[in-house]
Amino acid sequence: MDDRADNRTTPESSQSATRFLLDDGGVPTATAEIHDWLSRNGVEQQLEVTRVPFSAMDRWAFQPDDGRLAHESGRFFSIEGLHVRTNFGWRRDWTQPIIVQPEIGFLGLLVKEFDGVLHVLVQAKAEPGNINAVQLSPTLQATRSNYTGVHRGSKVRFIEYFNGTRPSRILVDVLQSEQGAWFLRKRNRNMVVEVFDDLPEHPNFRWLTVAQLRAMLHHDNVVNMDLRTVLACIPTAVEPGRTDEVLARLPGDSFQARLLHSFIGAGTSVHNMNSLLSWISDVRTTREFVQRNRPLPDIERSGWIRGDDGIEHEEKKYFTVFGVTVTTSDREVNSWMQPLLSPANSGLLALLVKDIGGTLHALVQPRTEAGGMDVAELAPTVHCQPDNYADAPPELRPAYLDYVLNVPRSRIRYDAWHSEEGGRFYRNENRYMLIEVPSDFDADDAPDHRWMTFDQITCLLGHSHYVNIQLRSIVACASAVYTRSDG
Amino acid sequence: MDDRADNRTTPESSQSATRFLLDDGGVPTATAEIHDWLSRNGVEQQLEVTRVPFSAMDRWAFQPDDGRLAHESGRFFSIEGLHVRTNFGWRRDWTQPIIVQPEIGFLGLLVKEFDGVLHVLVQAKAEPGNINAVQLSPTLQATRSNYTGVHRGSKVRFIEYFNGTRPSRILVDVLQSEQGAWFLRKRNRNMVVEVFDDLPEHPNFRWLTVAQLRAMLHHDNVVNMDLRTVLACIPTAVEPGRTDEVLARLPGDSFQARLLHSFIGAGTSVHNMNSLLSWISDVRTTREFVQRNRPLPDIERSGWIRGDDGIEHEEKKYFTVFGVTVTTSDREVNSWMQPLLSPANSGLLALLVKDIGGTLHALVQPRTEAGGMDVAELAPTVHCQPDNYADAPPELRPAYLDYVLNVPRSRIRYDAWHSEEGGRFYRNENRYMLIEVPSDFDADDAPDHRWMTFDQITCLLGHSHYVNIQLRSIVACASAVYTRSDG
Repeated sequence: MDDRADNRTTPESSQSATRFLLDDGGVPTATAEIHDWLSRNGVEQQLEVTRVPFSAMDRWAFQPDDGRLAHESGRFFSIEGLHVRTNFGWRRDWTQPIIVQPEIGFLGLLVKEFDGVLHVLVQAKAEPGNINAVQLSPTLQATRSNYTGVHRGSKVRFIEYFNGTRPSRILVDVLQSEQGAWFLRKRNRNMVVEVFDDLPEHPNFRWLTVAQLRAMLHHDNVVNMDLRTVLACIPTAVEPGRTDEVLARLPGDSFQARLLHSFIGAGTSVHNMNSLLSWISDVRTTREFVQRNRPLPDIERSGWIRGDDGIEHEEKKYFTVFGVTVTTSDREVNSWMQPLLSPANSGLLALLVKDIGGTLHALVQPRTEAGGMDVAELAPTVHCQPDNYADAPPELRPAYLDYVLNVPRSRIRYDAWHSEEGGRFYRNENRYMLIEVPSDFDADDAPDHRWMTFDQITCLLGHSHYVNIQLRSIVACASAVYTRSDG
Repeated sequence: MDDRADNRTTPESSQSATRFLLDDGGVPTATAEIHDWLSRNGVEQQLEVTRVPFSAMDRWAFQPDDGRLAHESGRFFSIEGLHVRTNFGWRRDWTQPIIVQPEIGFLGLLVKEFDGVLHVLVQAKAEPGNINAVQLSPTLQATRSNYTGVHRGSKVRFIEYFNGTRPSRILVDVLQSEQGAWFLRKRNRNMVVEVFDDLPEHPNFRWLTVAQLRAMLHHDNVVNMDLRTVLACIPTAVEPGRTDEVLARLPGDSFQARLLHSFIGAGTSVHNMNSLLSWISDVRTTREFVQRNRPLPDIERSGWIRGDDGIEHEEKKYFTVFGVTVTTSDREVNSWMQPLLSPANSGLLALLVKDIGGTLHALVQPRTEAGGMDVAELAPTVHCQPDNYADAPPELRPAYLDYVLNVPRSRIRYDAWHSEEGGRFYRNENRYMLIEVPSDFDADDAPDHRWMTFDQITCLLGHSHYVNIQLRSIVACASAVYTRSDG
């Protein structure tokens, strides 16, 4: 047991961590008003989304050389074939359709201090795949095609604070991966930038205190994926001398306080950071993982059916891909067509946490996904679409899935539904859970899992490709739990 | 200017750094004897390497589906087509042959303390492409095909200390990339492991003090690439209270001492670590970089010629690929055939260093390579095969190339030739240089370059894909400079 969770953070990151915890605005307010504002925006930004056959898609076509579905400009993204070979797991050799989007976009959040309180500038943004028409989004959410004008739309608002054109202070700036099951090596640039200028008002944008934003994560499908990942990348390991001051804000024996204690690095850890990094190297070496671009028609060998109405799997598992036409009045362009990916069913993302030696630890696993940048990234304890495993042999059923499906309500510390990126995924909603297990809970039978403190997870978020998008979402959700409330 | 180079190292890494500097054995000895031992091994391990046409290669063939040159087992590596598209540089769209070797191998160095002095177990190892028949190699240098027995050879010596079978203490364990110009996303697992067992003697293995090994880097083509990269990954930022003790070993105003001062993190830095990481994120976002596997015949579109005797470029640039048969008496198997890649000419890898505010800084650049894992990794100030640029337009000639080619001898602090991995590259020798520039040397005209302290570079080496193999080689070479000598 290490004396103190030995985070690897820099002095600048520790200072940011302390500010985001002490100057967050205190008890969140105005929840109803924020909902109203989102609803008003939902009416104004209404998107009409209609499925169309691939053959009716303007500017999109299956390319003659390798059959990929691509835009005539060569930009945006494409649907291609990917062959994967591994030496572990249920399926070890398959070819699947995958979204290829090599452009790295910006997910940027502006921060500004008003009267000593940190505020963030959120955007009410509609996306064609969204479950609620409009969700809270980062200040800037732009692909290269957006900000270089391939969309032929209006200019991207506030980009001047993220690309160095206007003075600002960069607090977070790291590339992070997105869903490896559906994207081939997709990353976005997660940024948090402090501004000192007075910014113009705009009806789609609104300043929230940090506490107000965190509290919105208690509500289903309100904070979008892009904002969740940016929130997760904010450092949490505070300066060594400031832990008592931060902890004083919450009742000492509450789950809230114990969670915060783990996030700020006040406790001890089962494994030190070198040992965790060595474990990650070991997993990435031991697991064989070979990705190769393939012509799209090759997916038929693995049971995928390509029709004009969509691409789907013969077992009705995994996902489908189809074309849509989107019409709007308030967007860079007034209407467009694009493919969307619709997962066949909902995902379950559950993180088990346990008190070990007086510090809460989270049980993470290294997860390999078809389109991942690296062999594995850290994922929640349970990370799957349970329906895909309905016919799996018992020994290949995901560890802890049945435990989570049957866990008593009294152990659930957080439980909400959030949706994935509405610009690519059609109405994809997943259940995110935080579950506290008793101290005699045994994890020895899952050799791939490891206990980590939350500050160890957030310190790794200072670098790319350690923590997958689903675990980052849970890290963001956990910040709602340790934010003060009236109750 | 930061008060102190704010490294991100862990307590364990700082302790290792201190030990490798204080317990290195002092002034290196026995240089002549080590050369003799290598020569004796060179006679015993003689490899006979003969070029053979592709059609005469046993078990290797161009595959019917995509034309790649592969082994019948599907293992080892293959020669495939890669298409690259970028938005910068001289060539922006091309297809080239590339070595695909998705298996991650071990590069492992055993360390043991004898009488308070750290020793490393080096191996005298022959490789078919080596310039000297035999070079100093890590204790363990094994691909998955080696250690899982695909070679049908003898067991891999000492692997039990690297895979957890025997007790040991892991000091370094990180995946690092190899030559991105020639390999597609190739990595190896760089490990340094301390052992406490008494190990059996073997004529191909020998314990050297850390100082003895570092001093061998003053000699051309003696320390192989695999050993150089492992050496580079050893932490150098010492525990905060120990810097004076480490510096006391060298004369205070010497270049040696100033170099060591930068490596151990005793000085100040121009940029803090957050700002450097942000810069790397910015480069990776701004540079467009799309890689796609292509059938091998597609390389002909970019001027590559495929004959039975080899694959070469019509401009006689870049490299050639050909088949060889290798015969030996002292190897896992007695003879085998394999393709080798032979670069068309030598590379120049030069790192400029400058005193800024009392601390030596190195001028690094983010370099993009066709087969890179990420868009860019940090590289030496000058990193190129100069002959490839003989006909380049002046504005696309690499920055500082002409400066280095004409630099006065009095500025050169290190200058040696080292070869790249002899298991894949045929007689590839590159010039590695460390050059101290005067304090009025201006780097403002090369906006892609940045000044970093050496401890900032070695702290980034705790993670994957920040520092490329050539810059790692120079980091290792620099350790020869700051090692004490009699002179």
